[in-house]
Amino acid sequence: MSKFAETPRNRVRRLPARGDYEKETIYSIVDEAKICHVGFAIDGQPFVIPTIHARHDDVLYLHGAKASRMLKHIQAGNPICVTITLLDGLVLARSVFHHSMNYRSVLLFGQGKLVEDDEAKMCALEVLTNHVVPGRWDDARKPNRIELNATTVVELSLESASAKVRVGPPSDDEEDYTLPVWAGVLPLRQQALPPVNDPRLNDGIPVPEYIAALVTAEE
Amino acid sequence: MSKFAETPRNRVRRLPARGDYEKETIYSIVDEAKICHVGFAIDGQPFVIPTIHARHDDVLYLHGAKASRMLKHIQAGNPICVTITLLDGLVLARSVFHHSMNYRSVLLFGQGKLVEDDEAKMCALEVLTNHVVPGRWDDARKPNRIELNATTVVELSLESASAKVRVGPPSDDEEDYTLPVWAGVLPLRQQALPPVNDPRLNDGIPVPEYIAALVTAEE
Repeated sequence: MSKFAETPRNRVRRLPARGDYEKETIYSIVDEAKICHVGFAIDGQPFVIPTIHARHDDVLYLHGAKASRMLKHIQAGNPICVTITLLDGLVLARSVFHHSMNYRSVLLFGQGKLVEDDEAKMCALEVLTNHVVPGRWDDARKPNRIELNATTVVELSLESASAKVRVGPPSDDEEDYTLPVWAGVLPLRQQALPPVNDPRLNDGIPVPEYIAALVTAEE
Repeated sequence: MSKFAETPRNRVRRLPARGDYEKETIYSIVDEAKICHVGFAIDGQPFVIPTIHARHDDVLYLHGAKASRMLKHIQAGNPICVTITLLDGLVLARSVFHHSMNYRSVLLFGQGKLVEDDEAKMCALEVLTNHVVPGRWDDARKPNRIELNATTVVELSLESASAKVRVGPPSDDEEDYTLPVWAGVLPLRQQALPPVNDPRLNDGIPVPEYIAALVTAEE
């Protein structure tokens, strides 16, 4: 399956032309983002919590402390919504009404469950670690028994998802194109600045190449 | 009141030492972020939708098309959670376990209601427009009658809120400081690149100073 079925749960309701149900589009957004926002409801009160995620095939991993209310809620199989948003630019139209943003966002739905098996848990932690900083897992000290026990990993089998994407210049009403108002896009991106050594870093340990490679190049 | 009361709804549960209930902290995060994530639940299914927000005093404005399911849900007075996250850096510890992120996040709770009065609605749209691009309202064509009717604005009276903030270098277990592993922070920020003219921009309209001023300075 290369595409998610369109259902009432994942349908893009506002501006459906911006909707995209292709796995390729959805997973490229999931993989580029460093964080997601997890929505869950307890006794009717919604909560939205930012956290790290990582995808492996059709599974999304989330992790945290064993005591996490959010993870307990997910592993109990309650419905959740994971939203991932990349902001690409401010869209400045001639009219206030047509102002917008360029963005790529994804809504993910699925059933969560606890990753219990030690080996699977270590695999998931490797995927999570390398999602944030590719190559970090092999360099850092791996979790020990105590740390593994203190960590909860849940997996969300991705049953349903949709992307919503806006790109390009503003779209004004035809009669507004004559107005003497500047219009265009202010591009936004997440920039990684040069790494800052830990003040307690021992002498003679250079910044690894796989970290230096993450620093955003100048335009 | 300069501080939100700590209640079960807004209490920072994981790592409570990172919690902050001061309005000054919370509002500075709200005001810096260009977008928020709105969580709401319909028949027990949570949804999390990214959208533009803006704050005025103790009120948060959201807006969109009249047909928006999210806005209808909010104006009906249903409980929501608005989460705002600024990602400031990747925190690379010597152990996988102590990896983290530097961030400033906020959870906002309150009762939503429709802004019905035309004048109040125009004020809210001005606040929203100038939140994204300060100075834009005075330059762009204002909403006309038809556009105003097609737009829903809701206000959320901020009854309860909390911030959660992590700053600084990694914190490793004492015995790990001798490991030959690089540790430190990779700072992240949202970067605005030079504005791109609309391909249909008329000749002789320069980029306004208030937009050029948004471009992120080099480090």
